[in-house]
Amino acid sequence: MQRYFVKPENMTVSHVVVTGEDVKHISKVMRMAPGDKIVCLDNQGRQVVSKINDINQDFVKADIIQEIHENNELPLHVTIAQGLIKGDKLDLVIQKGTEFGASAFYLFSADRSVVKWDGKKINKKLERLQKIAKEAAEQSGRRIIPSITFFSSWKEMLKEKQNHDANVFLYEENAKKKLHSDLSEVLNLSPASLLAIIGPEGGVSEEEASAYRKECFRNISLGPRVLRSESASLYLLAALSYQYELLR
Amino acid sequence: MQRYFVKPENMTVSHVVVTGEDVKHISKVMRMAPGDKIVCLDNQGRQVVSKINDINQDFVKADIIQEIHENNELPLHVTIAQGLIKGDKLDLVIQKGTEFGASAFYLFSADRSVVKWDGKKINKKLERLQKIAKEAAEQSGRRIIPSITFFSSWKEMLKEKQNHDANVFLYEENAKKKLHSDLSEVLNLSPASLLAIIGPEGGVSEEEASAYRKECFRNISLGPRVLRSESASLYLLAALSYQYELLR
Repeated sequence: MQRYFVKPENMTVSHVVVTGEDVKHISKVMRMAPGDKIVCLDNQGRQVVSKINDINQDFVKADIIQEIHENNELPLHVTIAQGLIKGDKLDLVIQKGTEFGASAFYLFSADRSVVKWDGKKINKKLERLQKIAKEAAEQSGRRIIPSITFFSSWKEMLKEKQNHDANVFLYEENAKKKLHSDLSEVLNLSPASLLAIIGPEGGVSEEEASAYRKECFRNISLGPRVLRSESASLYLLAALSYQYELLR
Repeated sequence: MQRYFVKPENMTVSHVVVTGEDVKHISKVMRMAPGDKIVCLDNQGRQVVSKINDINQDFVKADIIQEIHENNELPLHVTIAQGLIKGDKLDLVIQKGTEFGASAFYLFSADRSVVKWDGKKINKKLERLQKIAKEAAEQSGRRIIPSITFFSSWKEMLKEKQNHDANVFLYEENAKKKLHSDLSEVLNLSPASLLAIIGPEGGVSEEEASAYRKECFRNISLGPRVLRSESASLYLLAALSYQYELLR
């Protein structure tokens, strides 16, 4: 069944109103009609099966016929802090990271980020990425859309540390020297939430690495092969899903 | 250090000759000169540090100064059998799959593959994908370039089963019904090689699923969320790397 996130205020006890671009998707792309069923989510944990009773140009109205209690969310709350990378690679991180279960994304200007986000365009860029996250969340059966937050520097981003039980960063220079502590060691501490910092294409700068260490971020490695920046979060999330959802 | 795969016949006991497009990469892109060092691989397991002693338009000649015995290959030999999907998604499977440690790729025309490979263009397409695999292998520190083989039907592809210890396929319909056996159960059998079939965008057909089952392929699930076709192999390889390289 097709899944659509709606604004929380558009979902009442008995019915749902779908607005915005999804109206076109329901009527033109999926060619649905009154009587057809869709799944709606309020992005606050509620998920319902509902039967369409009215379709017009501006909205689709549907009656709630069943609450869905099944939960497909990764048990570990993972925030991917991704140093800014090129556009299509960032799209990949957001789309696949959402599929693989990330709870939130922090995007930050890293010392070695070649890409710069211009003040005026930031909101537009975030809006676009948020749309990618919404579609990936709908397609993959997520109950929430991961949030995406931009930080103009890693120093700003570091303040979010306190909201997470475990904090790690990927630093290739150390991984090569085998000075890393492994991911499984971090997971042995049974954190409920994890903040993982991933550098841009050029990697984590020495100043950043030293600051992360000072803030008690653990340096982890993701195996013996060198992963591209945009691949690291996918590897990490898949490994965490395997550990928390398949092995247990 | 930059890494280049060379033809096995171009690596002797004492020296290496780099030919083809890599010559331009060494001289023009990296702007290297005699005296600079590169790592060369023969794609048969040998990896050497060598010092350039001659650069011209057609080849780069280098003296071998050290053998590298370190091995970054995933201990489990994984073949990803990917039903044909759209071009950019297939590129992603090959590039990231190589980074994540796949040993080989089988590409096959699945019942629900929308994309068709035309007889005349197959070799050109394979050549292009092989180049993507070579570059990803060089960049990620692989010792071998995964091979890529095309099969015109899943029936042809199934004959390769005998070359693998364990055989699995991803079938969403069953995963939804929780009829799947989990990946970790398959790994408990300690296979040395694994063949994993992944359907195209539209999934595995009923006829395919029934044939795979008849050939003793196990139906596995990769967690509770719905993965796109091009994401499944990445999830699988990352999970296997975590299990074989980080947990052990």
